[in-house]
Amino acid sequence: MAVYTDITDAELEAFLADFDIGAPLVFKGIAEGVENSNFLLETTTGRFILTIYERRVRPEDLPYFLGLMRWLGEHGFPSALPIADRRGRLLSAIRGKPAAIASFMTGLAVRRPSVAHCREAGMGLAWLHQAGEGYPGHRVNDLGQAAWAGLFAPLRAEADALKPGLAAVIDQDLDTLGRLWPEGLPAGVVHADFFPDNVFFRDGAFAAAIDFYFACDDLYAYDLGVCLNAWCFEADGSFNVTSARALIAGYESRRPLSAAEKAALPVLAWGAAMRFFLTRLKDWRSTPAGALVRPKDPMEYERKLAVHRAAQVGGGLMLFGETA
Amino acid sequence: MAVYTDITDAELEAFLADFDIGAPLVFKGIAEGVENSNFLLETTTGRFILTIYERRVRPEDLPYFLGLMRWLGEHGFPSALPIADRRGRLLSAIRGKPAAIASFMTGLAVRRPSVAHCREAGMGLAWLHQAGEGYPGHRVNDLGQAAWAGLFAPLRAEADALKPGLAAVIDQDLDTLGRLWPEGLPAGVVHADFFPDNVFFRDGAFAAAIDFYFACDDLYAYDLGVCLNAWCFEADGSFNVTSARALIAGYESRRPLSAAEKAALPVLAWGAAMRFFLTRLKDWRSTPAGALVRPKDPMEYERKLAVHRAAQVGGGLMLFGETA
Repeated sequence: MAVYTDITDAELEAFLADFDIGAPLVFKGIAEGVENSNFLLETTTGRFILTIYERRVRPEDLPYFLGLMRWLGEHGFPSALPIADRRGRLLSAIRGKPAAIASFMTGLAVRRPSVAHCREAGMGLAWLHQAGEGYPGHRVNDLGQAAWAGLFAPLRAEADALKPGLAAVIDQDLDTLGRLWPEGLPAGVVHADFFPDNVFFRDGAFAAAIDFYFACDDLYAYDLGVCLNAWCFEADGSFNVTSARALIAGYESRRPLSAAEKAALPVLAWGAAMRFFLTRLKDWRSTPAGALVRPKDPMEYERKLAVHRAAQVGGGLMLFGETA
Repeated sequence: MAVYTDITDAELEAFLADFDIGAPLVFKGIAEGVENSNFLLETTTGRFILTIYERRVRPEDLPYFLGLMRWLGEHGFPSALPIADRRGRLLSAIRGKPAAIASFMTGLAVRRPSVAHCREAGMGLAWLHQAGEGYPGHRVNDLGQAAWAGLFAPLRAEADALKPGLAAVIDQDLDTLGRLWPEGLPAGVVHADFFPDNVFFRDGAFAAAIDFYFACDDLYAYDLGVCLNAWCFEADGSFNVTSARALIAGYESRRPLSAAEKAALPVLAWGAAMRFFLTRLKDWRSTPAGALVRPKDPMEYERKLAVHRAAQVGGGLMLFGETA
């Protein structure tokens, strides 16, 4: 959460002159989104979020993301609708950085999801997968399974520094994940970062999803694996099987999983834990001590990896309580 | 700008249970206020700012500040109105920290005030002074003229580290300010931090003032001196006499200054520059390298001190162009 770019009055005025959304009444930086600067913008015609894209988001990917948000909105999914400027463009620029305006979504993100929240989140994820069908844009998941070995290679010493012997364990994980990684499962647009801070609720019901800046083409069930890690672990590191069942049941209330997808879930969740472990490890190393944003602790995901690893050894299915 | 305290869902729920303002629809940390954590809170009944008071604000001063905000609102001045809980209390607590809810004010702060903004700001400051008359609360200005020598004593080495020889210059300034400091001028409630980021405009007109957490009893004209420093210097360090005249004219449109107040303005503005130089110098030294909030550069105010010092030598009045 941060505001990296300070916008002057003249810059805001020049930017808004390109849009037909009225005069500004409120403009406040908000603590939302780790990678970008976000501002609450209220005008005489409504409320919006102005986003300035900072590091990490590649400008050439922005048409894919904004086009997806527009597609989802037009297909009934509750996500922020990008606002086109007078010339029909979704993407503009402020101070040489890419910038966009989208509609403001009401709703509350939850920090400690209940079982009921997990069910709603699962339903919302399936809805997103369905709404994204037919979106003509495509983006390869550059943080997907094929990328992990390459991501880890320069980080081996860092892993051992975190925990002696960890690099060899990760090597073995990567090998196992490569062998077990499923093929031929249903695929399409996935959110790929469907964490609790990117999901809004109203009265306990799923209300909206935000932050589509990791969206890409991948297996739908992999997206569910990301959620199992993000929504179903307790603060003490234990896996909450009840939450996991609720998440999956909520998902299946809109989009039933095939037998092959269900069978692959433990491996997909293990892989999803690997993806977040690796990027956090990389950020951990590359963030200078005085940075404004503290990197997230990679050890949280190292512990999740260990849970998945143990479950795999135990048969692969017990994690989600299929045998119960 | 920062959010220091992360609030869980359960904490927000427990907090709001004490208030009769409906259920939450939006809750977002906002980048406003340096010393406190501020959140945009929208409920089924309206919009509010929830503030959690962090370091620097002394809890025992909060009843004065919140009472003043209530007084100002009840006397027609546009500032955020604190909301009482079901038991009539303006001050509550979240995670052991003092917290309060106030109404949400629309309006835009300006980063580069125009001459017209300066006139409006001056008018708003005089309005604030008038509206505060009769407020029964009192608070000594613990950052006022009497406190500066004591503030500076432990910072002399730091001053010389910033600029060799600076400590001796500041010593002399403090001596001169002590000798020239006016007595008997009109006094009352002052804002004491009426900077552009604490003043909102709508359609170019003064709309509201926020952040009363330095308010205290002091000379009204001293508050105007704070504004002359905060609103009328260009980015290159030069003093904009046109802006200063507009600020003073705007002030006098509501509350004419006495001849004695006008005569004292150069010294009061010099002293106001000293106050901000000293607190920034202190923060500069005491902020660890890895802090989330970067301290403001004391050298900005060292340069303003130099401008006031030179004007004083030149007769004391030329700064504001009285002779033009």
